[in-house]
Order: sequence, then C-alpha cells, then structure tokens
Amino acid sequence: MSSAVDTYIERSHDRFLQELKAFLSIPSVSTLPDHKPDVERACGFVAERLRAAGIENVERIPTAGHPLVYGEWLKAPGKPTVLCYGHYDVQPPDPLGEWITPPFEPTLRNGNLYARGAADDKGQMYIHVKAAETLLTTQGRLPVNVKFLIEGEEEVGGRAVDRYVAENPAKLRSDVALVSDTEMFAPGLPTLCIGLRGMVYTELIASGAAQDLHSGIFGGAAPNPLLGLARIISQLISPEYRVQIPGFYDDVAAPSPEEKESWARLPFDEAEFLREKVGSPALVGQQGFGVLERLWARPTLEVHGIVGGFMGEGAKTVIPAKASAKVSMRLVPRQDPQKILAAFQKEVERLTPRGLRVEVKALSTAQPVLLSPSDPFIQAGAQALRETFQRPTVYVRGGGSIPIVARIRESLGIPVVLMGFGLPDDRLHSPNEKFHLPNFFAGIRAVTRFWENLSEG
Amino acid sequence: MSSAVDTYIERSHDRFLQELKAFLSIPSVSTLPDHKPDVERACGFVAERLRAAGIENVERIPTAGHPLVYGEWLKAPGKPTVLCYGHYDVQPPDPLGEWITPPFEPTLRNGNLYARGAADDKGQMYIHVKAAETLLTTQGRLPVNVKFLIEGEEEVGGRAVDRYVAENPAKLRSDVALVSDTEMFAPGLPTLCIGLRGMVYTELIASGAAQDLHSGIFGGAAPNPLLGLARIISQLISPEYRVQIPGFYDDVAAPSPEEKESWARLPFDEAEFLREKVGSPALVGQQGFGVLERLWARPTLEVHGIVGGFMGEGAKTVIPAKASAKVSMRLVPRQDPQKILAAFQKEVERLTPRGLRVEVKALSTAQPVLLSPSDPFIQAGAQALRETFQRPTVYVRGGGSIPIVARIRESLGIPVVLMGFGLPDDRLHSPNEKFHLPNFFAGIRAVTRFWENLSEG
Repeated sequence: MSSAVDTYIERSHDRFLQELKAFLSIPSVSTLPDHKPDVERACGFVAERLRAAGIENVERIPTAGHPLVYGEWLKAPGKPTVLCYGHYDVQPPDPLGEWITPPFEPTLRNGNLYARGAADDKGQMYIHVKAAETLLTTQGRLPVNVKFLIEGEEEVGGRAVDRYVAENPAKLRSDVALVSDTEMFAPGLPTLCIGLRGMVYTELIASGAAQDLHSGIFGGAAPNPLLGLARIISQLISPEYRVQIPGFYDDVAAPSPEEKESWARLPFDEAEFLREKVGSPALVGQQGFGVLERLWARPTLEVHGIVGGFMGEGAKTVIPAKASAKVSMRLVPRQDPQKILAAFQKEVERLTPRGLRVEVKALSTAQPVLLSPSDPFIQAGAQALRETFQRPTVYVRGGGSIPIVARIRESLGIPVVLMGFGLPDDRLHSPNEKFHLPNFFAGIRAVTRFWENLSEG
Repeated sequence: MSSAVDTYIERSHDRFLQELKAFLSIPSVSTLPDHKPDVERACGFVAERLRAAGIENVERIPTAGHPLVYGEWLKAPGKPTVLCYGHYDVQPPDPLGEWITPPFEPTLRNGNLYARGAADDKGQMYIHVKAAETLLTTQGRLPVNVKFLIEGEEEVGGRAVDRYVAENPAKLRSDVALVSDTEMFAPGLPTLCIGLRGMVYTELIASGAAQDLHSGIFGGAAPNPLLGLARIISQLISPEYRVQIPGFYDDVAAPSPEEKESWARLPFDEAEFLREKVGSPALVGQQGFGVLERLWARPTLEVHGIVGGFMGEGAKTVIPAKASAKVSMRLVPRQDPQKILAAFQKEVERLTPRGLRVEVKALSTAQPVLLSPSDPFIQAGAQALRETFQRPTVYVRGGGSIPIVARIRESLGIPVVLMGFGLPDDRLHSPNEKFHLPNFFAGIRAVTRFWENLSEG
C-alpha cells in the first residue's frame, strides 16, 4: 500500500503544485475588510477541494467573522477519529516593496515556493487535504475517521473557531487532533512540538490627577502615572529576570531530565541565535537555564507598550492624568492562568505608589499545553515522521501560545499532535514567505503514514 | 501727576476696553498655519497701537516664524531703560464646545472679560501699551526710556525672539525688563514672581533586538527596551521622590529663611490645592518640604511619555526593537543645566541593563532664575504694586520655566520684573479663559507707577 501511496503522490506532483499555487493566489488577508471577497473565495476553494478529495458532509459554517469549513469521513468504525485543524487566511503582505516576486503570484525558486501563506498555513493545511485524497483514491477508504475544521481568521485572533469548538464538542468529538502550523527545528529534522506556553495578557491603567497637569506648575506635588507604572513594572521582575510576584513559580513543572537532555542534543547555536535572530548586544534571561529552556519551559513577564502623556516629536511638559501599560506573562505547565492573574493583581495593588489608583484588566488568558512523548498518539506521529524523513523525530516545545490548541484540549479533552513542516527561515508574517516544496510532499506522505499508524495502533 | 494719570485712565475706560476687545477678536493662534493671516493682523494691531500711543521707530521684524514688533521711546536721558516684553499670539481655543461664549468674541460677565488670550497674554501685554499712552498723553513724556519687544510665537516655543535677543544685545540694551505674563497669588494680592525653575528635557532612546520580536518565540532571551526604560526611570528617582543621580543636589541653593517664612504667610490651603487643582488621591513629593517649596524651590524629575511597541487597543505580543521616553528635570537656582545633563547621561549609562543600548538626547535646557527682593528694580516694582493695590506685595516663585526670562538674563544681563496681573482661576490654555477687568486697569496704573518709581530711584 505504501508504495501505491508514494506512487500516487509522485505522479500527482505537478497537479498538487498547481492546486497549491491556485490556493496561494487568493489574497485571503483576514484583517483587511477589502479582502473579504478573497477570504470567501479561499473558503470556497477549501470546501470544493475537500469534496473533490472525497470528504463528506462538507459545509461552510457562517460566523460573526469569516466562515469555517467543516467536513468529515467517518466510515472506519472502531478506528480512532482525527480532527484536522488548519486555517486558510493569511497575514497582510506589507511591505510590498520587499517581496522579490509578488506575494500572491506563487513562484518556485530553488525548490522553495514563495507566496504569502505558503507555510502559514495554506501550504501546511493543504497537506491534510491531499493526504485524504491520496488515500481515498488509492485505497478507496481512509484508515481512520477524519474530521476537518478549517478557519479563516487565525491571523486576527480566531474568535469564531474558538467559540465553535467550545459550543460543539459532540460534533467535533475525536480521539486526537492534528495541527500542521509549526516548523521543523532544522531542515530535514523531523520535529514534533509537544509543549506550548500559556499566557495572561493584562492592561494596567494608572490614574493620578483629575486632568493632565503642567510639570512646571505641579511637578513636585502631583503624582505621575507613567512614573508609577515604570516603578510597578520594574518591581514585578528583578534585574536578573526573576518574576517577583509571590507564588509565581510555585506550580512550575520543570521539564524532565530526559526532555532537557534531548534539547541539549538539538542543533542549536546560541551565538548564531543571538546574531541571526535577535541582534541585540546580548541575550538576557534567568540565570541557570539554557536559552531553549528559557524560551520553552520558563515563565516570563514582558511589557508590550506604555501609553499616556506626550508621545509626539519634541518636548511637552505634561504630567498625564492617566497612563496604561500592556503587560503579559508567558506561563508554563502546571501554572494556572487564573491563579497567576489573581496573584498579579494583588501584587500590582501592593506596589501601587501613593497618590495613584491602578486598575488591572485581563485582556486574555491561555492555558499552557504539554503532551507526553509516551502518549500513543504522539508516538504514532513521531513514527510517521521518522519513517518519512528517515531520521529520529525530535521533541521540542514552542514558547508561544496557540489558542486553538489550548481550546481543543479544554473543550474536547484530546491530545494534539503538532506536526509542522515549516522551516525556521520560512519568514512567516514577513516579506518573501516561502514553503520548502519537498516538505509539502513529505508532509503528505507523513500524514498518510500517521493515519495508518493510528489505525494499526 | 498721579491724579492726572488716574483721571485719564478712568475717562478712557470704555475706549481701552473696546480696543482690548478688538485685539482679542483676532484669532492669532500661532500653532495653526490656517491662522497665519490672523497672526499677521495681530502683529499689525500691536504696531499700530504702539505708534498711536506715541512710541517711536515702531517696526515689524520678520523672522523664520511669526514676526516680532519692536518700538522705543528713548527721550529720558540719564534715566533707566525698561525693556517691555509680551506676546500677541494665543493658544488654540479647543475644545470649542466648552466655551460659554465664543473664544474670539470677547464678552464681559461679572467683571471678567472672557476670550482666548484675555490674560495670556494680550490683556497683560496691552497694559504696557496703555501705560505708555497714558503717560505720553498726560505728561507729554515718559519718566524712563522704554523699549518694546513683542513676539508672536510664545505659545509655540518662542524661537525667533530667543534668537533675536541673543543676536541683538546692543539694540535691546536696557537696565531692567518688565514682563506681565504671570499671575497674582490670590485676588487683590499684589505679587512679584522672583524665581523660576530651570529645565533639562531629554529623550532616552533604548534599542535591543534588530527588529520587533514575538514575545512567545523570544520572551525569556531577548532584551525588552520598554522594561529597560521602566527600570532606568524608576531608579533615577526614589519612591520618596529623591532624584538618585549622583551630585544632583550638590548645587541646590535653599530659599532663605525669610523667603520660606513669607511663603508660610501666603493664603495657601494644601487640602484645597489637592482637591481643586490636582484631584489625585494624595499629593506626593520629597518629605520634609512644604508644597510651595516643592513646587518652587526643589528640583524634580518627571517622565512625560514612553513610546514603543504596541499602543493600540487589545493585545499584541511584541517585544519592541526600540522604545523611547521623554524625561525632564526641573532645576532650581545654582543648578547648572549642562552639569545636570552630563550627570544624567552618565547615570543613565550606568543604569542601562545588559542587552540594551540607550542614547540620551537633550531636547532643551533652561537656566533657573532667581532675583533678590532687595534688588532696587524689584523694590520699585513691589512699591508700585503696593501703591496700586493698597496691600504689601508678596514675593513668590514659579515652578515652570519662562525661556525668554532666562534668555534676557543671559544675553542682556539685566533683572526681570515679573509683574503679573492674572488670577489663579483665569484658565490659561483652557476653555473660558478670562481676565479680571479691574486688574487690567490696575495694571495700567501699576506700570505707570513702576516707571515713575524707576525714574525717581
């Protein structure tokens, strides 16, 4: 069978590529109202391609935002059900002038397909569709039951899909979810992402005087909300990057010695990371932890913006009545966002300088995610990747939060296999985004193998 | 003579008021390009009124910005020369909806003349013009030599006049300057302002990574310029409001015991100040100093704005590559702005966290000003006010900086008599600005007496 699959994929090479190019030619930029017809077009493309592949009950699900696409193939009784998630919307292409070839005219150069959305996530999402087609065509069936749920507003927050998953657990009930929206740690290195940090994102709103005041007339007696925020923020985290909120680290689960050991074996060069990826005079962070551990398994606190007072060119001597700051914390397994938020609020209150009031608003929270390498679904994924790429699969984590992953875990209670085929230099969200074309075809093979493995497991 | 002067002022009451209303009807908003013709019209009005009063060699002096008006009367050989400064431009009137009567339709209510610029500074500036007219008409001469220098861009920084004074010390050579652009401490209380704080206004520009980074992917290893600025700023000033820059207080000259004693006798109610003027939960500032001393005679450090990262609605998880902060220090007598700036720069460098670069830009500096109550020109002013208002003159300071005052002292080396006739509730720069009309006429009497006193001194 494997040989029939491989042969089909090989013979379909040009057609699959043409289809992917057609998909990437649709500028489905979800954040720009002008592109709403394009987003609809991309939605229609996905639905039509799912139907053509043999997926059943394909429907366009309207939402308050952009529509979802759902489809299913449920004719493998007794076999596991896999929920395949992806998104058909893309980031805006700006700055246009920096693209070597236009963002919506997909172009092949040196084995890479250049286009907005090539890797994030149209190219990766389409892998699932072509895997289904390949098996349904060559075998007349899928080895497992499959449900597709594909959204059109991942790049603008994914509210509709979040709500849909929360409200339709019975319809979406599955044994495992498959998400291809991450990357391989290095070219040719099969990678499963088994952990994601969680998050608490807040806004601190500090108020002092009843109106903006002149610092000449009132400086020395009136409280300054900007100074107050600076003082609060710089006390929330020590100069050694230890978060100072009481109890903050209480529930932190350290990675296992095996996991840490596996990270040490990854092809990671700290000097290169500093030089190529960050570009600052030095890296920073908590002492006693390696860079990957700091990025993946340590919680952090960051300030993203401070608003208030005078933000124009030149000089204005205002003591603002009000100022606000966006402050977030990344959380790691066993930390509970609600508990951390409560401790944060309490500490901000304690640190609030005399003369000011500070309100803490929670803008969003996300649970951290951690899957075990010994989970049978993870093992089935790792085996499929190893078979495809002929190298042992490495387990990594991601430092960010993928809200849909936390949502699936919370509402459906199932493991999520983050099987990504992107590469670290794919330039997601930037000009000249690309997808390494061999990974597209390897991805199709890997997903068919993953489903086969699940069926046999 | 005094009686002839008083009679003339009394008989001219209606005409003076009509003239002032005509002046206030010109919307000479210096910051708005659309109002350039109005600014020109106000300039012409001033020149024409000076000529009509009998002032000689009146000229419109073009500058890179709005024009200056110069005029002189130099026929009192052996007598002192007084340089009268004022400005004919006004602040924008927004928000228009909050004005009870339109800002450029001067309206008399309860003895107050409501209009933009009524107190700041058209009404006060016009006092000098009418004082000259009164004496030249009733006496045929002025008791002293007088030079007028009136600018049209005080509300936008006063660059042209600053440059003109610096470049024309011979033409402007005088024995004392008279500025009526401040206020009386309380209604009916004759007030001379004898001190102003100086200033150093800076911008701190902090850079970390080569580009904006995602806090999920890089949080825990990449430096955050916003956090760095918060840390630097909150270390520059202690929670007890002591500026922590080494040597910052070395040259601070404390007010004399007599001056402090005189402040204690001023009609100042701290609770009312907090409630009516500030409106924050509490006043703040350095322990061991009264509110007036903190506002007038203690240096401060304030942050006016912090720019960088995400400043929109909602949540974005960016670690900005760059962020900047506007930080100023108010200085008091004997502190040298250049020395303070150098110490500030050095301390910011010392406080710069690992992983960041911070550049300090000086946007402006101003010398602090302090005049002695025993200076004969100050005494002549105090006596004129006492005679006019029939109460002893109080000496106060101002917490702000009036750059032209520091410039006159630096370039011409003369004392500046800050004889203000505004009141604390005149709402400068705000809707419903007004000038207490009795103060306009009292001002004319006071200025004629000041010139007489100088002549006799």
